Amino acid sequence: MLVKLNRGAKLPLYVQIRQQMRELILSGALPPESRLPATRDLAKALGVNRTTVVTAYRQLWSEGLVEGRAGGGTVVACPENPGAEEKDFSPSTLMWESRYTSRIRSFHASRFTHLIQQAPPDVIKFCLGIPPDGRTPISMAREVLEEAIPRSMNVLQTAPYAGISELRRLIAKRAELIGIHATPSEVLVLSGRDQGIYLLAQALLDPGDTVALEVPAYAGAIHVFNSCGTSICPVLTDEQGPRLDILEGILIHQQPRFVYVAPTFRNPTGITMSLERRLAFLELCQRYKTPILEEDSYHDLRYEGPTVAPIKALDRYDHVVYLSTYSETFFPGLPLAWLIAPKDVVERLESLKGCMDESTSVFAQHIVYEFLQRQMNEISDVVYFYASRRNIMCQALEKYCHGLLKWKCPDGGFFIWAKLEGGLKAELVLQEALREKVAFVPGWTFFPSGNGGEGELRLDFAGQPEDRIEEGIRRLGVALRRCIDEKFPHRGKPIPFANSQSDPYAMITQRLRVNI
Amino acid sequence: MLVKLNRGAKLPLYVQIRQQMRELILSGALPPESRLPATRDLAKALGVNRTTVVTAYRQLWSEGLVEGRAGGGTVVACPENPGAEEKDFSPSTLMWESRYTSRIRSFHASRFTHLIQQAPPDVIKFCLGIPPDGRTPISMAREVLEEAIPRSMNVLQTAPYAGISELRRLIAKRAELIGIHATPSEVLVLSGRDQGIYLLAQALLDPGDTVALEVPAYAGAIHVFNSCGTSICPVLTDEQGPRLDILEGILIHQQPRFVYVAPTFRNPTGITMSLERRLAFLELCQRYKTPILEEDSYHDLRYEGPTVAPIKALDRYDHVVYLSTYSETFFPGLPLAWLIAPKDVVERLESLKGCMDESTSVFAQHIVYEFLQRQMNEISDVVYFYASRRNIMCQALEKYCHGLLKWKCPDGGFFIWAKLEGGLKAELVLQEALREKVAFVPGWTFFPSGNGGEGELRLDFAGQPEDRIEEGIRRLGVALRRCIDEKFPHRGKPIPFANSQSDPYAMITQRLRVNI
Repeated sequence: MLVKLNRGAKLPLYVQIRQQMRELILSGALPPESRLPATRDLAKALGVNRTTVVTAYRQLWSEGLVEGRAGGGTVVACPENPGAEEKDFSPSTLMWESRYTSRIRSFHASRFTHLIQQAPPDVIKFCLGIPPDGRTPISMAREVLEEAIPRSMNVLQTAPYAGISELRRLIAKRAELIGIHATPSEVLVLSGRDQGIYLLAQALLDPGDTVALEVPAYAGAIHVFNSCGTSICPVLTDEQGPRLDILEGILIHQQPRFVYVAPTFRNPTGITMSLERRLAFLELCQRYKTPILEEDSYHDLRYEGPTVAPIKALDRYDHVVYLSTYSETFFPGLPLAWLIAPKDVVERLESLKGCMDESTSVFAQHIVYEFLQRQMNEISDVVYFYASRRNIMCQALEKYCHGLLKWKCPDGGFFIWAKLEGGLKAELVLQEALREKVAFVPGWTFFPSGNGGEGELRLDFAGQPEDRIEEGIRRLGVALRRCIDEKFPHRGKPIPFANSQSDPYAMITQRLRVNI
Repeated sequence: MLVKLNRGAKLPLYVQIRQQMRELILSGALPPESRLPATRDLAKALGVNRTTVVTAYRQLWSEGLVEGRAGGGTVVACPENPGAEEKDFSPSTLMWESRYTSRIRSFHASRFTHLIQQAPPDVIKFCLGIPPDGRTPISMAREVLEEAIPRSMNVLQTAPYAGISELRRLIAKRAELIGIHATPSEVLVLSGRDQGIYLLAQALLDPGDTVALEVPAYAGAIHVFNSCGTSICPVLTDEQGPRLDILEGILIHQQPRFVYVAPTFRNPTGITMSLERRLAFLELCQRYKTPILEEDSYHDLRYEGPTVAPIKALDRYDHVVYLSTYSETFFPGLPLAWLIAPKDVVERLESLKGCMDESTSVFAQHIVYEFLQRQMNEISDVVYFYASRRNIMCQALEKYCHGLLKWKCPDGGFFIWAKLEGGLKAELVLQEALREKVAFVPGWTFFPSGNGGEGELRLDFAGQPEDRIEEGIRRLGVALRRCIDEKFPHRGKPIPFANSQSDPYAMITQRLRVNI
């Protein structure tokens, strides 16, 4: 008997037939070209409906194990792999390059990362984006650590994928203070901000799907979307936030699976989306039923001006997944973040997170828990610390780079976005700057496919001590002046714009150049 | 002028045309149905080759922004989204279910997880697979912790994606001891074992691609492959390891992107692949140029018998990615693992890892570093500890479950795989067992799509203290006996096999039933 059915098993009969046939073929018991029993005969012999056998055969066919023959009948397929025939086999080194999926093959670490990794240590680096190693200013972190450890030897505990419940509860409670109403089951603890972006990308995007992204954008987000084989639709921004006319066009024409925004002190521009824009942005996404991923890592680092509500706090229709972290601001060495989303989304992402790491470091969870507990007392020190660095950088820019750069002093966060005057290219300036031993991030890093930002750059004032900031900006000024004086004798000439102001296209093109 | 070209920019001209056109369309400056300039005219006006304009238009077309018209000419496409026309808009709650990709929609947490989560605390759980919370036996862990912390306040440092260099170096050095030659740049530090499986799956598998997997297999691996939309090809196993006749059939017919094996004290069966099988397995994969993912988490937990070399140590042709961890064995609360692979693979995966977490917990890296430093002195205590639990469970099984279960006492690891006698189903027995306050994992959990393992179960002896082990197995015996006596009056009857021994198909079918 070719196949034996077990009618008591919970496996459907066609699955049993398929599985047993499959094993007969794969083990060679049924060699290539051997003929399978006619479906009618096998059905009769097994006492099953003929459809059951046909279904099983069809699945074998879709697995490439069997083939139909002209004139009817099914035979075991011949292997296509020539290796099977190869008798005198000599192994050779595997060429991995040919093994990667196409989306991974085209996915490289940024050119910029390599450039910076090679920079010698005496270069003043306004390009790190986070407080550098061993320089985290928060002496409080050490205290928290010393208190947390003896109390909880359970830092060696395992934790649920979604995070320890005390932390989820506390995050939900703290979110209330910024207007977000969430239960602990709507909170997911993550191993860093990028994990949140990656999880949502994995849950909502198939390779080739589209996501909308305000540009310039956090390069890490671009990196994540590229790794997923996602098509990125850039949404241009102005001083208020993403341009809604552009966004609506994208929502209509491209139907992105979600929109990624970072409305507060955004990396890399430092710009904050106005409340009016947030409301209109939210309504637009709700109109087109498009989910929003709101990243809000810099929310607590406000140096002046009134707080603006997160978009999540304005949303009453479950469109927003809110993502925040202290890893980028207070605890650079602790890979921990959290997201707040509808419970169903949290459960899906939790299950997916279980594929990426067994759990977020319980040690990190305890530190962040302690920090959240005492946050109100401590946070103002940290804000003061960074505000002072911002002030020094802005003053230094005024002193050394006036007329060479255009920038806006941000109300918070870590970043200043600057536009090069005189048509200079950031990449060229960076070469000169590195010679002067100062580094920044060229603007194109923050555009998908590097299309844009050639004449812009990002400065990070958080990562260097105060005296180094002034010195670094002085060096930058020297580099800029040399670029303009030596290489661009036409310095100061205005960039030629299209000149017919009555032509609406010209106007738009002009706006484009100013706003990127 | 509709479009303005910047010939000094590094952007190709067709990209500039596409980008500016794109913005005109998305911003509404070029409304739906408006006609684009003829390619010939625009090319002439811009002074470019007509092909340049055609290329730009083609890309706009592939983005769905423009359409061709019968009779020639290109117009701005009409939006398909009905929302655009909706004038009286009232927002409604987003239905997230419809937003997930199909692979995520069909991806659920295992039934089993829920069952166990609901089990009351007085249930003796032989189902955890890791030492339970707060019960990690390694007092040494605490010491390591106390030493590591003050020395390295740099546990709050950021770390490279690939791991701190001291740890990579030490892992490479320790790998020598088990015959694996690797440089530090061939080592990648990970946030847990599942991350290693996930990374390789993401790098090598597109949705729909095939992976081969010995069954029964670690359920976490099945979970990862399901989340990637992977088609899983089960490779049946015998007492020596994966059956090579089956595997060769799969390599020929299905051309899997890689093969996943865990050759040493494998979860869930506890079986170790023999050296002969390892060599033949490796040669087979090399013949078909198929990468191997070798998971080796339990390597150090050998209680008797001589060590068998990892497959990676036998491979001179770069086919094997080796994955190991202490998170499953010595430090359940520290999500850390490592893989050893050709340098190029490590660099690819490192770049991809950067999308999932900013870095593996530096704290965890320091602990594992300390542990590796002193490992030789400490590890034997741990091995002794678990060996004793294994012995107690095996003795208890002999005492309480003789004739009810068939099992083999493993030489190492955490798991005993048992086959139910008398045709019992594990799911049914589990219900009875939970009534007796003891739990195990039903065998189908370890088969892709749950197809298989109905009459088998996994017992974990590592996670319970010694006195609870004997009591738990006693309870299991009670539950088994009740199942057989009360529900299966035909107890003891042999399962009917196909009886013609001259029929090769019957023989194979028989082997199948015994070996799963």
